[in-house]
Amino acid sequence: MINWTNLDELKAFQELKDCAKVDLPEVMAGENGADRVKKYSVPMAEGLVYNYAAKAVNDDILEGLKKFAEEAQLIDKFALLYNGEVVNTGEKRRVLHQLCRGQLGDAVIADGVDKREFYVKQQTRIAEFAKKVHNGEVTNADGEKFTTVVQIGIGGSDLGPRAIYLALENWAKVNNTLKMKAAFISNVDPDDAAGVLSGIDVKHSLFVLVSKSGTTLETLTNESFVKNALKEAGLDPAKHMVAVTSETSPLAKNEGYLDAFYMDDYIGGRYSSSSAVGGAVLSLAFGPEVFADFLNGAAEADKLSKEPDVLKNAALLDALIGVYERNVLGYQNTAVLPYSQALSRFPAHLQQLDMESNGKSVNRFGEPVSYVTGPIIFGEPGTNGQHSFYQLLHQGTDIVPMQFIGFRNSQIGSDVDIQGSTSQQKLCANVVAQIVAFASGKDDANPNKKFDGGRPSSIIIGDKLTPRALGALLAHFENKVMFQGFAWNINSFDQEGVQLGKVLAKKVLAHETDGALAAYSALFNI
Amino acid sequence: MINWTNLDELKAFQELKDCAKVDLPEVMAGENGADRVKKYSVPMAEGLVYNYAAKAVNDDILEGLKKFAEEAQLIDKFALLYNGEVVNTGEKRRVLHQLCRGQLGDAVIADGVDKREFYVKQQTRIAEFAKKVHNGEVTNADGEKFTTVVQIGIGGSDLGPRAIYLALENWAKVNNTLKMKAAFISNVDPDDAAGVLSGIDVKHSLFVLVSKSGTTLETLTNESFVKNALKEAGLDPAKHMVAVTSETSPLAKNEGYLDAFYMDDYIGGRYSSSSAVGGAVLSLAFGPEVFADFLNGAAEADKLSKEPDVLKNAALLDALIGVYERNVLGYQNTAVLPYSQALSRFPAHLQQLDMESNGKSVNRFGEPVSYVTGPIIFGEPGTNGQHSFYQLLHQGTDIVPMQFIGFRNSQIGSDVDIQGSTSQQKLCANVVAQIVAFASGKDDANPNKKFDGGRPSSIIIGDKLTPRALGALLAHFENKVMFQGFAWNINSFDQEGVQLGKVLAKKVLAHETDGALAAYSALFNI
Repeated sequence: MINWTNLDELKAFQELKDCAKVDLPEVMAGENGADRVKKYSVPMAEGLVYNYAAKAVNDDILEGLKKFAEEAQLIDKFALLYNGEVVNTGEKRRVLHQLCRGQLGDAVIADGVDKREFYVKQQTRIAEFAKKVHNGEVTNADGEKFTTVVQIGIGGSDLGPRAIYLALENWAKVNNTLKMKAAFISNVDPDDAAGVLSGIDVKHSLFVLVSKSGTTLETLTNESFVKNALKEAGLDPAKHMVAVTSETSPLAKNEGYLDAFYMDDYIGGRYSSSSAVGGAVLSLAFGPEVFADFLNGAAEADKLSKEPDVLKNAALLDALIGVYERNVLGYQNTAVLPYSQALSRFPAHLQQLDMESNGKSVNRFGEPVSYVTGPIIFGEPGTNGQHSFYQLLHQGTDIVPMQFIGFRNSQIGSDVDIQGSTSQQKLCANVVAQIVAFASGKDDANPNKKFDGGRPSSIIIGDKLTPRALGALLAHFENKVMFQGFAWNINSFDQEGVQLGKVLAKKVLAHETDGALAAYSALFNI
Repeated sequence: MINWTNLDELKAFQELKDCAKVDLPEVMAGENGADRVKKYSVPMAEGLVYNYAAKAVNDDILEGLKKFAEEAQLIDKFALLYNGEVVNTGEKRRVLHQLCRGQLGDAVIADGVDKREFYVKQQTRIAEFAKKVHNGEVTNADGEKFTTVVQIGIGGSDLGPRAIYLALENWAKVNNTLKMKAAFISNVDPDDAAGVLSGIDVKHSLFVLVSKSGTTLETLTNESFVKNALKEAGLDPAKHMVAVTSETSPLAKNEGYLDAFYMDDYIGGRYSSSSAVGGAVLSLAFGPEVFADFLNGAAEADKLSKEPDVLKNAALLDALIGVYERNVLGYQNTAVLPYSQALSRFPAHLQQLDMESNGKSVNRFGEPVSYVTGPIIFGEPGTNGQHSFYQLLHQGTDIVPMQFIGFRNSQIGSDVDIQGSTSQQKLCANVVAQIVAFASGKDDANPNKKFDGGRPSSIIIGDKLTPRALGALLAHFENKVMFQGFAWNINSFDQEGVQLGKVLAKKVLAHETDGALAAYSALFNI
């Protein structure tokens, strides 16, 4: 029997609050610190490791987190989700994005079909289409190959696929599997579409229009913008465009597109990178085999997320430590800091994934909660961030928990040896140094040069950022966010908070305004 | 006589705390809301306007902020700064970046020269060099024109110039003044340099190496990386590289470079966009006239920042409201949300500018302060952010103050009319709608669809994002950050917090580690 209980009504949460706090500089000192690094480590999928030695936890707190996970039934709730229960209670929907990458539990039959089969079928259709584009069976009107693929989408149809493309672009170049360059149009700002179009070869570009409902204002507007540009170039838009949408949308089975690939209401935008939303653009850019590897990496991570032992389930443990930091230690933010230039936009994707999922003030029954929920997520790649906002992270007045990511090897493999070390070694040395500097600090007679330490971080370490490793990384964070949503007893799968702005924007455009809305509109001459 | 007093020792601060708080949804309702929008507005330079109607202030609080500004002597301290006093007390340096764009106060003679003349001379030298590159007097060894300029720098030598380049790239294309494409190499991750080099035409690329000290590890490493690539392509690195550095650095007067342009210790990295650090790459990319316009816009904003009347000085008022939100209302973050795709990396620059300047825990005398200082800054362009993290901003459990930026017109001017409005109108309608939605909220019988409102924001509105407007925008934020530093009685111009990580990274690379540092190093095989 599943109990949907508020965080603060759980006995284990009260016990956690009473648990003695950890003095991080103290426990990270000397050989005890070294022992923590060796011990506080969980293997993840694809050879990744989650290390939480520099988090403000100890065996007592970990025991408390274990009890909390049990009492909150986090693993059981995850099972409900992947077995197809309607866990998105607000919108009365199942949550099935994991079926895009594997069968974690029972077959899920919905709308009269086996959903795993449905998603795999779309992948197969995408793979066949991508191969035809790559081998020249599908071409532009002049029979010339398409060289560029342009995703038109916003939010979940943009941030995840874009972050993944950037993460694998150099890897694909080196591995001779960059089939097409990709570009992305998202913002309703007309300069976004105009700027992207001015930088590509439109005649050899294939556009992927992505909107689940087929009604997203920004995306339809940008579609018109692109179609105008195609027409002005003397091209037939219908020969340059495919759609990714739901089967019931106006974009489905529409003669305006070369083809359409389907997702459904059980896949939320921010969880849709594994579906046709990511699948189409990434299979076109890298080839379907690369996208399949990405999915396989994610599937392995999903399997590990079923593990009930908190100390063997990195996504669950990461989630629990985050809840501890948020609700017991009172920290408001989490910085995501990948030491990998390829992951430059991964923090922006996690920002959506996490903040849109868990930035809620009511529980899954619509009752206001009396505790804080999802944190604010931000981040930039290291070492760039070190020369930017790390000053505040080290010596500012608020403590910001950090999530580092690093790899032993670069993707391209080109390197230079300066002062006895390669760039890659310098990169790795820097992330190691930062973790210890943040945790341990350093005393100094000059308070301006003093570091209090006690600034907690975890790190995910991998051998190299490959498609499989990236899939595992993405699934780790998706599952972490879902575990946290269960812990806070909120619905991580709706986004009612975006509605009011849409309604008011329509009023402005229809000139149905008064009061402040009218006054602001006047400032913009609209 | 200037008093350097801690925030919490100011009588006006105590009075501000006692001031009755504003109920934002209440004051923003009806005609009162419209009146606020009209009244709470300050003209800025270059036709920009700072509107703070949706901030949680009223005439009483504004009066309190005015008293605070007077007691804290913010305008007087700003005058000390631009008149050349050593306000960077920790490093014992003057702070003179404003002299790159104008003479705000007295002539500043330092190191035996008039510093305004010195900076202008560098601009003139850069302008002459850029013209020679553009007209083919300075070419590659084969006498062919350079088509691409690549900045090699990190932190302040990267984020500001990159954000400005992206902000003006499309504007320059439309105005036929994009002389060279620009690219940027910053991260010590070797995949950054390798990735950028694989995307450019090295033979026709000119590299700008930027390091004030000439010793920045990342930058020198990337220089070697680039030089290797040039040699491998059979090219002479000395024919493809200029330096921006201080006159005393090893990069100055060095035969390894075509030329060198100078800055000095009185210009901090994060304030260096107006100096040769931004000047070289931007003059090469857009032509020196465009860079001069940018500087002129900044100079106009600087002049307005001298205005003692709080209600006529946007930078000062913005700073004061931020201090009020941070130290009276207790908010920890500020989201920077430009409704302009061209400003996609402007928030990343402000993140450095603000967090590295004011993320401090000791006052300018090195004494710990007992109040919070600089906030965490993050942001992405709208409307993209609406489909991402705005859910949390609307309905999350923490309130995040917001700083919107918007323009009436797009840069490129290409647009499409859908459903009775252009993309630009939709963009503007959305930012207007968001301000009102955040401030006023909306009641609903279903708590899941309820918006509490009371989420404060300001907006800077302009006609179009031009070089002059961008200069004014940048100077506004630079001056805002400095006013806040004065209010918190901290030194906004040093960055001791970045030192410990550097020291520890060197130890890792030298294998001089023990304890946790050794254990983490082992995880990376270094």
